[in-house]
This record gives sequence, C-alpha cells and structure tokens, in this order.
Amino acid sequence: MTRRISKQLRIGKVTVGGDAPIVVQSMSKTDTRDIRATIDQIRELEDSGCEIVRVAVPDREAAESLATIRKSVSLPIIADIHFDYRLALGALKAGVDGLRLNPGTIGDKEQIARVVAAAKEREVPIRIGVNAGSLPANFQPRSPLADRMVNMALEQIRLMESLEFSLIKVSLKAFDVPTTIHAYQMIADKMPYPLHLGVTEAGLPRTGAIRSAIGIGVLLHQGIGDTIRVSLTAHPSQEVFVAYEILKSLGLRQRGPTLVSCPSCGRAEVDIIALAEQVNKCLEGVTRPIKVAVMGCVVNGPGEAKDADVGIAGGKGKGAIFRKGKVVDTVGEERFLEAIMAEINKIG
Amino acid sequence: MTRRISKQLRIGKVTVGGDAPIVVQSMSKTDTRDIRATIDQIRELEDSGCEIVRVAVPDREAAESLATIRKSVSLPIIADIHFDYRLALGALKAGVDGLRLNPGTIGDKEQIARVVAAAKEREVPIRIGVNAGSLPANFQPRSPLADRMVNMALEQIRLMESLEFSLIKVSLKAFDVPTTIHAYQMIADKMPYPLHLGVTEAGLPRTGAIRSAIGIGVLLHQGIGDTIRVSLTAHPSQEVFVAYEILKSLGLRQRGPTLVSCPSCGRAEVDIIALAEQVNKCLEGVTRPIKVAVMGCVVNGPGEAKDADVGIAGGKGKGAIFRKGKVVDTVGEERFLEAIMAEINKIG
Repeated sequence: MTRRISKQLRIGKVTVGGDAPIVVQSMSKTDTRDIRATIDQIRELEDSGCEIVRVAVPDREAAESLATIRKSVSLPIIADIHFDYRLALGALKAGVDGLRLNPGTIGDKEQIARVVAAAKEREVPIRIGVNAGSLPANFQPRSPLADRMVNMALEQIRLMESLEFSLIKVSLKAFDVPTTIHAYQMIADKMPYPLHLGVTEAGLPRTGAIRSAIGIGVLLHQGIGDTIRVSLTAHPSQEVFVAYEILKSLGLRQRGPTLVSCPSCGRAEVDIIALAEQVNKCLEGVTRPIKVAVMGCVVNGPGEAKDADVGIAGGKGKGAIFRKGKVVDTVGEERFLEAIMAEINKIG
Repeated sequence: MTRRISKQLRIGKVTVGGDAPIVVQSMSKTDTRDIRATIDQIRELEDSGCEIVRVAVPDREAAESLATIRKSVSLPIIADIHFDYRLALGALKAGVDGLRLNPGTIGDKEQIARVVAAAKEREVPIRIGVNAGSLPANFQPRSPLADRMVNMALEQIRLMESLEFSLIKVSLKAFDVPTTIHAYQMIADKMPYPLHLGVTEAGLPRTGAIRSAIGIGVLLHQGIGDTIRVSLTAHPSQEVFVAYEILKSLGLRQRGPTLVSCPSCGRAEVDIIALAEQVNKCLEGVTRPIKVAVMGCVVNGPGEAKDADVGIAGGKGKGAIFRKGKVVDTVGEERFLEAIMAEINKIG
C-alpha cells in the first residue's frame, strides 16, 4: 500500500497528514459543562493512548467551559459545532486547537466566513465533517449517498479556499460501510487535504468494532486516511483500544501486546482458551509492544511460537516455551502461565 | 466491487464459489473422539448460522468417529487432516463432505495421490489449506512469506490437476493481515478455484474479531473470497457471529438485527449507552434481518432513525419513535425501551 500524501497540518502539538503517523482520536462523552468530569475523562483518554480529543459544544456554557478544560489537559482539543456558528467563535476564543463544522447543520455562507476568518487569525484547522445522517434532504436528492457526501464536502472546501483558508481536514462518515469507503475513495483524488476516517454510529463495541475495522481498515490498506476515530456506543477509551487494534493489524502503529492464539480444535491437548484468557489478563496494562503466541498443538504451534517474542506450543499436557525464536524451557500444563509470564518479564 | 468468479463446487448440500453466497464456516473444538460432545457442538453451530463445519482428525479413532457424527448432523463436514494421509482415507470412508489437507504437513506426493484418487471416486472436494505457521522452513526460504504461501498452494494445485482432480478449494492463512491479504490477492488471478478466507490464530474475540474483519473484509470488498472462517480463541459460535457481522457490514449476507447507535457525546440528553445495551439485549435471538437505530440527539438522530426499520431519536428526556421512516410516537425517556420494542414486534 502506498499512502496518499496529504497536506500536513497541526492540531495543537499533533501533526496530521503528510507522512505523519496515523493519529488516534476519540470524543469525550461527559456533559461538557461539567468541567471536572470532562477533564477527568480526557485524562483517561490520554492514558488509553488517545492523541486528539473532540468535545461537543451544544451551548454557550459548554463553549465557555472549554477555556478551563483546555488549560487542564495536555491533549489537543477539537470543538464539535453544529447549528450555531457563534459557538465556534466562542470555542476559538476559549483556545481550542481545532474545530469540526458539519456542513449539514451549519449552512449559511456568511456565518461560515466569520468562523473561517477567526480560525485563520488563530491558525486553527477546521474539519469539514460531513455525516450521512445530517445531509440536508434537498441537497442533490437524486444522487447516490456517497456522491452527495463528497459533493457537499467539495462545496465547503471551495468556499473555504475562496476565503484563502487551507487548514482543512475532511471526513465523510456513513453507517453503511461500502458507502463510507466509496465516498472517501472518491474524494481522496479530488483534493489535497488530510482525511479523518470513521464509520458513524457503528453501534455497541462487539459489532461496532467489526464495522469500523472493515470501513477504516479497507481505506487505510489503500493508503487513504490520516486520522481515525472509532465510534462506539461505549466509554470512549474502548474506541481508542479498537483504533489501535486496527492500526496494529495493518502494521501502521504499535501499542501494547499482540496475542497470537490458536482457536483450539479437536486436536488440542491442552486448554488453550483458558490459557489465552489468563495470559491476556496478565498482559493488561502493558503498553510496550510485545508479541506473545499461545498455541495448542504441533501443527502451527512451533512456527507461530518461534515468530513471537514469547510463545508456547502446547501438546500432550506439556508445552515448549519459546523466547525470541528459541526453545528455552519445557513445562507441564500446570506451569504454563507462570513460565510464559516469566519469559515476558525477562524481555521487559 | 466486482466478485471474482471462481469454479463452483459443492460441499455436501452447500454450493461454494461462482456466484453462490459467501459461505460461513467454523470448526468444532470438542475432542472428535467424544462423539456426543462433537455432535452437540455441531448442532449449536448450526443454530448459530454456521453452514459448513470442519472437524479435526488427529488419529484413527477420530476418523472412525466421523461416520456416526456425519449421520447425526445436517451440516456438511470437512475433515481436517495433518501428517497422516491414512486419516484422510479413513475420513472419506466415514463419509465426510470435504477434506482439508495442509501441504505443509502432508508433503509426500504418492500419499497425496492416494488421497486424491479416493476423493475423486467419491466426488469429495479437497481444500489445499496453506498456513504460514506450518510452511516447511526449507521451502523457498529466501522468498517473502506471501510468495512462499502462494507457491506452495500452486505446486499442490498442479499436482492435483496432473491427477485430473479439480474439486479444489484454496486457503492461504497467516496471522499477519497484510501478508494474508497479499497472498490471496496474488493467487486470485493465478487459478480458477474457490478461495476460503481466514486470518489464522487471530486470538481472543475482542482483538481477533478486528484482525479478522480487516483481513477478510479487505478481500471481500475486492470481490475475493467464497467461504470464510473467523478463527477465535473462544467457543466456535462466536466465530460464526463475527463472520456474519463481517458479511453484513459489506452487504453480502443478512442475518439478525443490525443496531445503528450513536456513540453519545457531550450533546446527548438521554443515556444512549444504557438504552442501546438494553435494546441489544432484547434483540438477542432474533434471526430475521431488522435495522434498529438508537440515537441520542437531533444532529444525526432523525436521519438515521428514518433510515432504519425502527428508530428512536432522543433529546431533552423525550424521544421520537420512527417506524419505516415515519414518526409514530413521542415518548418520555422512561418509556423508550418499551416503545422501541413494541414497534419492533409490530413489524415482526
């Protein structure tokens, strides 16, 4: 995969686009007016690996809260604005690092021009965040959804360019995965700005992670995308976890352990499901990249265990323990967990 | 996406390849010699939507068990064979619907020829199941892994073709997702047989579902793949669940409910996370396709709720209930769940 090279910009301290690493975003889900709760959640998000956080700004009190929130956290903050352009002006005044405007909910060109002027003065990027669920029904009603999303974004890009503003990022989110993929593919060649990827309203974690992994994964595998946000109906740190798993699966970022484990089958002579769960539990909280293989038999066991930093290939109640490709021990099933964790701690 | 049209074949009653629907496979994880447990698990798999089940055959007793298992279940059975070609002959004798041979563990050409002859006589397809973890170290050691996997499969295909056998299916599974994708992409143009997709040893459900969704999803989105198996270190019905979510996300199959739900944010005026979890719980066991939207505010709420079979767009402690695109009720937060489920039952 060759990456699409977009114009680079900065959201606060974080570089987005060009050849910068794919950035992981999420969103606070607390009431923004509850400053304490919002700061606490943003700090949790930072601990989980989130790199940019978006915060909803539903009213003036929320916009004003951003000043204190911004000063109390180290993650760059993007203000999420709908309906009222004055909230964008308030957020900029509060010192946010980025704005997200939804052209489906803020349509008036003069109002947008005022926001753009204020953002330009402060060199704050604006994301044109198109969402299938809030496209105006009267916007190109006969065109396919993906085309409508792309055209709405392009219209908004042209408006901002006519105002000599180029700190632009674009997103085109739909619930439907093929529609989302198609929209991003179409716009990727039509403009030079970074793309923020997401599948919107993807649902609860179990299914939402799958939808997001396909939508975001297909695009990243084609070299499209500069930042990602996984939308899950759950605590936002779960969004960050899934985002990293997507990036890790494609070799684009590293964070925390990677557990290779066999599905078990009628050939397994050890309880691989219980062992993998135990090892996984012991690895919780580890943030350095380490590859651990938990394998149940001799078919693929030695191959995968050799390839990992630490591995076990089980069989007949015993298991060979591998470290960096070499067998370092052979232990009985009752000592599997202990032996694996000992090797993991050795390469700490 | 235009689908790659492969040669069609039948695994028992199930058509694979060509323009047939993408087939969902899984594997029993019981001891195959424990006939009762294996039959029970295969029946559970059938209930969960599994369409073909693979069963490990580690020894002669397991091969002989297949006769009883085969007669007691309605799913087609594929015998998974490694190391000993006689187990393949035994499985064929027991009446299995397909064989999986791993060329990394059964290499002897004469032995393979004997299996092929017996399979041909019974018109039983053979999957050439290459796995990165069991590639012989001395097979093209200097080539990239994906090339080695492809070349091992092609060598085996040529052998079978030279024996005038063409009931072939191919898989090329690795843990590494880009390697897996690349291997399948390469072989797709080089031979006409159906492809069985999977990312091997993908791990526990939370992360394994993500790896599998990307690997399998990227390929299916390119039109590559005729059957899929999600490998998870968990009960196999979880593999089937994830497989359908992948296919549903790409619009390739339908099964059970699809829950569109917003991630919630600082704008939400109702507890959308709790509501989505409750609705999801009530939808457990529903196998007919139905799209339900649970949305927290007016930004995307009405748009997504209108687009679903049943939806709710919440706001300020109240919610508009949609059925097939029309508002049918407005209820207070305490009645959300009841009102949504009532509408779902109406369209039953």
